[in-house]
Amino acid sequence: MYELIEGGVCAAKGFRANGIHCGIRRNRSKLDLGLIVSDVPCQAAAVYTTNLVKGAPIYVDQAHLSNGIAQAVICNSGIANTCNSDGLEKANRMAAVCSRVTGIPEDDIIVASTGVIGQPLSIEPIENGMEELFSGLQESCEGSLLAEQAIMTTDTKPKMAAVSFEIQGKTCHLGGIAKGSGMIHPNMATMLVFITTDAAISHEMLQKALSHDVQSTFNMTSVDGDTSTNDTCCILANGLAGNPVITEDGDDFKIFMKALNTVTIQLCREIAGDGEGATRLLECRLTGAVTEEDARNLAKSVICSSLVKAAMFGADANWGRILCALGYAGVQIDVSRVDVSFSSDKGEIQVCRDGSGVDFSEEKAKEILLEKEIDILVTLHEGSAEARAWGCDLTYDYVKINGDYRT
Amino acid sequence: MYELIEGGVCAAKGFRANGIHCGIRRNRSKLDLGLIVSDVPCQAAAVYTTNLVKGAPIYVDQAHLSNGIAQAVICNSGIANTCNSDGLEKANRMAAVCSRVTGIPEDDIIVASTGVIGQPLSIEPIENGMEELFSGLQESCEGSLLAEQAIMTTDTKPKMAAVSFEIQGKTCHLGGIAKGSGMIHPNMATMLVFITTDAAISHEMLQKALSHDVQSTFNMTSVDGDTSTNDTCCILANGLAGNPVITEDGDDFKIFMKALNTVTIQLCREIAGDGEGATRLLECRLTGAVTEEDARNLAKSVICSSLVKAAMFGADANWGRILCALGYAGVQIDVSRVDVSFSSDKGEIQVCRDGSGVDFSEEKAKEILLEKEIDILVTLHEGSAEARAWGCDLTYDYVKINGDYRT
Repeated sequence: MYELIEGGVCAAKGFRANGIHCGIRRNRSKLDLGLIVSDVPCQAAAVYTTNLVKGAPIYVDQAHLSNGIAQAVICNSGIANTCNSDGLEKANRMAAVCSRVTGIPEDDIIVASTGVIGQPLSIEPIENGMEELFSGLQESCEGSLLAEQAIMTTDTKPKMAAVSFEIQGKTCHLGGIAKGSGMIHPNMATMLVFITTDAAISHEMLQKALSHDVQSTFNMTSVDGDTSTNDTCCILANGLAGNPVITEDGDDFKIFMKALNTVTIQLCREIAGDGEGATRLLECRLTGAVTEEDARNLAKSVICSSLVKAAMFGADANWGRILCALGYAGVQIDVSRVDVSFSSDKGEIQVCRDGSGVDFSEEKAKEILLEKEIDILVTLHEGSAEARAWGCDLTYDYVKINGDYRT
Repeated sequence: MYELIEGGVCAAKGFRANGIHCGIRRNRSKLDLGLIVSDVPCQAAAVYTTNLVKGAPIYVDQAHLSNGIAQAVICNSGIANTCNSDGLEKANRMAAVCSRVTGIPEDDIIVASTGVIGQPLSIEPIENGMEELFSGLQESCEGSLLAEQAIMTTDTKPKMAAVSFEIQGKTCHLGGIAKGSGMIHPNMATMLVFITTDAAISHEMLQKALSHDVQSTFNMTSVDGDTSTNDTCCILANGLAGNPVITEDGDDFKIFMKALNTVTIQLCREIAGDGEGATRLLECRLTGAVTEEDARNLAKSVICSSLVKAAMFGADANWGRILCALGYAGVQIDVSRVDVSFSSDKGEIQVCRDGSGVDFSEEKAKEILLEKEIDILVTLHEGSAEARAWGCDLTYDYVKINGDYRT
């Protein structure tokens, strides 16, 4: 029913995208300005970082999305446009330039920036590049890839996902692109994620879907515990699939939610797996908790522990660090009932039962932990709530990348 | 008035200490069993980790200290005696062996362990080594150093501090040793810290002094955000200095508190500066907050940020990451009033004023940040509360040490 397809943000009908190098970054081989445009105005929703220090574009977006309508996303990489005294002016000028060239009303344009905090954004390269950016818009997968490349910073891989699905006999599409590699510890929203769909849905229901979805997806993803200042996740729905507009809870909404979740989970895994310096994707599956909130806090505590992350880099089955991280998560648990296993494509191995170590083959554990995708399975045996969280290992390269990011 | 002196836990009259290699660790050059003994019974107080997963010795200590009296501390390194089904039995046997050899009642003995979680503790090496450990007790600084070496794990430097001070004409001494390098993010207590004093003080006032002190010292120190399972900070006061027993608030108590704080701050700086893989000691001095709690949460958030820590490793004045960490600390602040400067022995440089960047010499900033001890100065201009927090940079060696700790 949910078929994974190509196309990213161009998978849905009526969306085109592009990315160029306009000159914000010195490296000419690195794209730095991306654009996503819908042929028609869209219902729109967004969630943003909870960091009190917010990128200037977020204030612009909150204003522009107050009526729930948008038609384009313009985003630069290289400079975050955060902590600059002229940040708001620059973010508004980005929207104005985009409006002039695309003909889309300024307040239907979503603005985003990502990169270094506290350095001024030059608007000239954006003004000079806008015509080229607009005239190169493509409705193929290539357009989505170019837009994705334009928002990447320390990301090493493009992150795109899309699905097709049916609502009342109409084929709908939903796809997204994401950037995020460091300063990833979202809270309410995350990094930059742009999602498009041709499903018809009201902006109220779109916001409801997005706000609910991020709780179990982007908000359960952490690379380094640092909540970014520019986290923005937005979704545009242009309705071109022709399904009856989703305006309330019900089967259609459920189908839509599931499509959204399929794409966001895929993007979360790609973000965590491409965490700065990462060699392994970690997924903590926590089961048997009393409440879902407990389950989430516990799973996230495991994924965020520097010591767990470093042990995973070393393919070291040091499960004591997992118990330690569960113990300081701020959730009341019965430690004497906790079971822990590791699993990967090479199999599964239990390392802790009832809160104490069990004899296990270090050799087999090493074989399992040397894989690229590791599941950390924790069972509390206290209730039926569960959660998943995604992260990555802590490596030399994380330190290297972040010891000298600006220069 | 407070004179820094040598001697660590042996600085106070009537205390002797020793450390040996008994065989818990395979490396014969590494001491692994330490003992501190007072000639007479002491008033005693302690604070412990808030991690729900606790080392077995902590339960033993809570029982033994229920009457506020202790006379000795026995501690091993190499194995944490945590998450073992026979942990309590082993911790009790450590106390029993120590009691048999020293003649001190079992319930006046404080037991501690530090090392790998979830591996069983062999009691035989401890039993076999106890006579040698006891007969080698020394009242010189050397005894304290041996005890300190016996509790070190990934620590690269011994951590000791002591002061002499006067109460009502009587010269008193207070000194301590500490271990702690990774899994350092104390909450209520910290790592292992053993403090001795010959001042006369009731165990109620001793507990009050210690519980208050750790709030602004060990609880403001973080190496990696992981709250250990075995954190224990205890203090023994044998009264041999002959001052009138401190039994209530007042000038004598204030003098004692200040002596304690002088030693604990020194130990905090030594712990942070010797954080796993650290090349720099970081101190965040946060001023102008509305409440002390706010100030603490903000200073700690800066010190705990992986991105700030990595930037400091690279001597990179990436102050945007400091604002980012302030922004997600969970404290309401007015970002537009925040000032940030860096300082070290090479001078001071302002990098952010009113929440935005200021022009500064990258060259001068680099010179300041290349020093071994860096102060991060943050001013909020909102109130008069302040706090200090200590941490260290995040380096390749942190990853190296923790990627393969057990093997």
